[in-house]
Amino acid sequence: MTSVTEQPVPRSWTTLRDEKARRLAAVSPWLEDGILPKERIVDALQALIHPGDRVALEGDNQKQADFLSRSLAQVDPEIVSGIHLLISSISRPEHLTLFERGIARKVDFSFAGPQSLRVAQLLEDGLLEIGSIYTYVELYARMFVDLTPRVALLCAEKADRHGNLYTGANTEDTPTIAEAAAFRHGIVIVQVNEIVDTLPRVDIPGSWVDVVVQADRPFAVEPLFTRDPRHIGDLQVLTAMMVIRGIYEPYGITSLNHGIGFDTAAIELILPTYGAELGLKGKICRNWTLNPHPTLIPAIESGWVDSVHCFGSEVGMEAYVAARPDVFFTGSDGSLRSNRVLCQLAGQYGVDLFIGSTLQIDADANSSTVTRGRLAGFGGAPNMGHDPRGRRHASEAWLKLMKAADGPVSRGSKLVVQLVETYKKGGEPTFVDELDAIAVGSKSAMPIAPVMIYGDDVSHVVTEEGIAHLHKAEGIEERRAALAAVAGVTPIGLRAKPERTAELRRRGIVAYPEDLGIRRAQAKRALLAARSIDDLVAWSGGLYAPPARFRSW
Amino acid sequence: MTSVTEQPVPRSWTTLRDEKARRLAAVSPWLEDGILPKERIVDALQALIHPGDRVALEGDNQKQADFLSRSLAQVDPEIVSGIHLLISSISRPEHLTLFERGIARKVDFSFAGPQSLRVAQLLEDGLLEIGSIYTYVELYARMFVDLTPRVALLCAEKADRHGNLYTGANTEDTPTIAEAAAFRHGIVIVQVNEIVDTLPRVDIPGSWVDVVVQADRPFAVEPLFTRDPRHIGDLQVLTAMMVIRGIYEPYGITSLNHGIGFDTAAIELILPTYGAELGLKGKICRNWTLNPHPTLIPAIESGWVDSVHCFGSEVGMEAYVAARPDVFFTGSDGSLRSNRVLCQLAGQYGVDLFIGSTLQIDADANSSTVTRGRLAGFGGAPNMGHDPRGRRHASEAWLKLMKAADGPVSRGSKLVVQLVETYKKGGEPTFVDELDAIAVGSKSAMPIAPVMIYGDDVSHVVTEEGIAHLHKAEGIEERRAALAAVAGVTPIGLRAKPERTAELRRRGIVAYPEDLGIRRAQAKRALLAARSIDDLVAWSGGLYAPPARFRSW
Repeated sequence: MTSVTEQPVPRSWTTLRDEKARRLAAVSPWLEDGILPKERIVDALQALIHPGDRVALEGDNQKQADFLSRSLAQVDPEIVSGIHLLISSISRPEHLTLFERGIARKVDFSFAGPQSLRVAQLLEDGLLEIGSIYTYVELYARMFVDLTPRVALLCAEKADRHGNLYTGANTEDTPTIAEAAAFRHGIVIVQVNEIVDTLPRVDIPGSWVDVVVQADRPFAVEPLFTRDPRHIGDLQVLTAMMVIRGIYEPYGITSLNHGIGFDTAAIELILPTYGAELGLKGKICRNWTLNPHPTLIPAIESGWVDSVHCFGSEVGMEAYVAARPDVFFTGSDGSLRSNRVLCQLAGQYGVDLFIGSTLQIDADANSSTVTRGRLAGFGGAPNMGHDPRGRRHASEAWLKLMKAADGPVSRGSKLVVQLVETYKKGGEPTFVDELDAIAVGSKSAMPIAPVMIYGDDVSHVVTEEGIAHLHKAEGIEERRAALAAVAGVTPIGLRAKPERTAELRRRGIVAYPEDLGIRRAQAKRALLAARSIDDLVAWSGGLYAPPARFRSW
Repeated sequence: MTSVTEQPVPRSWTTLRDEKARRLAAVSPWLEDGILPKERIVDALQALIHPGDRVALEGDNQKQADFLSRSLAQVDPEIVSGIHLLISSISRPEHLTLFERGIARKVDFSFAGPQSLRVAQLLEDGLLEIGSIYTYVELYARMFVDLTPRVALLCAEKADRHGNLYTGANTEDTPTIAEAAAFRHGIVIVQVNEIVDTLPRVDIPGSWVDVVVQADRPFAVEPLFTRDPRHIGDLQVLTAMMVIRGIYEPYGITSLNHGIGFDTAAIELILPTYGAELGLKGKICRNWTLNPHPTLIPAIESGWVDSVHCFGSEVGMEAYVAARPDVFFTGSDGSLRSNRVLCQLAGQYGVDLFIGSTLQIDADANSSTVTRGRLAGFGGAPNMGHDPRGRRHASEAWLKLMKAADGPVSRGSKLVVQLVETYKKGGEPTFVDELDAIAVGSKSAMPIAPVMIYGDDVSHVVTEEGIAHLHKAEGIEERRAALAAVAGVTPIGLRAKPERTAELRRRGIVAYPEDLGIRRAQAKRALLAARSIDDLVAWSGGLYAPPARFRSW
């Protein structure tokens, strides 16, 4: 081998920047102060996006750059085709029209709840190709590595004539995508509801923005985090009591994240009743990473909550949040500033417990929300629902999961709790021998099965039967026995042996309600601090303004 | 149990915001357009910081808000005392003067390299109390949960008269700390080198900033990522060849993070020589998350590198980076935009390989840079040097670490590589029976030993002896045997049995240079594409301007 060094090859180092300038020059005659007349949007997209481009389209978990997505669906596929879409949530019909029309070809995404059946169909028809399915922050991570967007189509409430943006309460992912695009010479196009002279505050500097366009109507956003307490049943009150008595209290859980199910809403709603009676106010559930759940209002009003940092916002909660700045992260203008990446970071590394629900769990506590025919993805759960092995700081709760057997090099662990009923509505068992995700993954030729939370990351499973402290179990067999002990009469639960379960209860590995001093008869809806949306409004002093569909009066 | 709901207690929900307004009012007579004359800084800090406050002081890995830290060290401890300092890097003498004078009492931090002996001493003297030691992003995560700062003391290059900030290339942690403070009613005080009418670009909006002060001199920043190729020896060239031939090539590593040691610098420097001869250009090492290492210049100039996203910057690399916008993330003004949180996210979730060095490794591949008497912390390594269990997307490299034995619910893994010489300079073995970190942790009453990278996260250990593919080993005993096989004549290495090692080599679990077709005689400094700082400057076409201490001409 020689040691001849390659010589530098003469080349341009500004191809990305030059290309951006070229494309922007094509639309500059239409711009005034960087503002594009909305009638020009389809023309502009045709000039700014080239075939095969990587395009980040803001379809967040909540807010949608829908004026831009509807406009993109109207471009001429002879001009713009085969783009590679980066989108966290495939949630609007036109997102998939892009594939039907050949405008887009490949997609990297995190969640496709409402459109998951169509995603599966388009995949089968060969019109859509999946790069990968991610948890949110992974997708954003790759936007700074090998998936930097050439064009970003974003969404904000207001812009001024310098391109500065005010996102309003749903800041969500806009700053992150804007940063990935703007600083690698991507073209940043933003739809806004309104163009004003002076912004309430600046969320994203105008230096990062190339084109602003006022949308035909305010951006779309769904109240995804509103759970009507009327739909919470006694069984959910029971599991909520168990979680508080059997986990939050003994482990000393002060910082946490809740999923969006009715089961966790029940926990939020019995803090001011059951939690208060246990004398736990100020001792648990002080610092939260979650969106402004309406069902958290009674706990906030009762003085349980020190702080809430949010991924996004929630429709109808704007005035309430603005009136509670001691609790929420709000700007000098008074309105919420959310930030999905930072809240996911906080939810991963800064809190001691994640609790969420799922659709299926297997004997090893692997779980997934992917069921047959659906390619739903996972959103943010995998990032928070695992033990973050990069964590180096200790807390009381985290240390309680330390295994003495590990010797001097040992560490604690995050509490990852799965909270389910043994049977789903409709009579399907939650505990199954094999997750549907395995068949779905194999049918869709995915490299691995789309598992949401891996069993080896789960510390606790809670059902109406009891709590399985999986982290206390010694070995796989004992772990499976503990899970079976709370799996009711599902195929997995039927494997439980009474004498084994009795032993696990004695050793504190399994806890039934009676082991926790909870009588099932106590577990009544009457324990809910609010039993209707109307109650929540009352608790909020009239500040919470629920969307029409949740109003019953 | 009754179900009486607690009633809302009348209280103020704006105590944080009111307190902020009260404090700012006290200094407002001194401000003009939010700008404080520098002579007033000590008075202002005395008015704005109250005893016991949580104060985030920007001591990043690189840039230092040193005008503010020097000023803070001058406040009257009768007025400001017992503050709780949040600081990522304890790196300047005055950081510890704060504790000696009683101005600060408690600290949460990530890294204390140059000051680690003094930290240990102050701890022993009872003048300093450690909250926890973190990896960077964990500490920031908690700033959005239970460690929100009441005051943030930050650092930028320029401000305009609206408080908008231009950070320059060392954006680092400023946007993140500013966001945590500004949106929870913390007071944001920023030192700048210069106040101008028009900024090159805006990195942080003025809406987030309360007080700007022009520093007495430009903020301090050290060239921490500059490795002079003259100090790279043949042994490091050998290990670099092994990494390329034995890991990067067969695993197909396209996206990666490198630590800052001479061993990884050697890899960077032989890509254009050894790497090119293997025909690997374009096939490996395309997308990087790391600071602008000068030793990466030859690989960039030879066309190996598609992109580099940076945590911070590097002194002297400004003009070079600005001239290579196809590769680096730069703003519309042309200069680098870095961002530690986003780059850590990219390094955690968006790349397939982390490779770094350490001071000690035990038989189970646990490692630490904490050695006797020092409380150094870890900086960012733990966040990138672990298998991120929240990852759900697959890549070729990641899938190669999948274990078939895991059945249908299986996943791949990140490559976490430790690259060390079996003996350190000075003749101390790198491989030890027990990490010093265990004694240090126990002496300092830390809840767990300060381990930097846990063995169960390590996929490969590389020494001058060979590569241990730990992820391929079956069971703990085989894993230990593989590690021993590359641990040379250290106490751990002496446990290796020749026949066992031979078997591990046959099975591809251990690879010695000859197994990879590498002759030790090839491994010469002559393979380095640059053998001096001067060579690096030449490669850069004169754009790299090394700091004086690195100049030999």
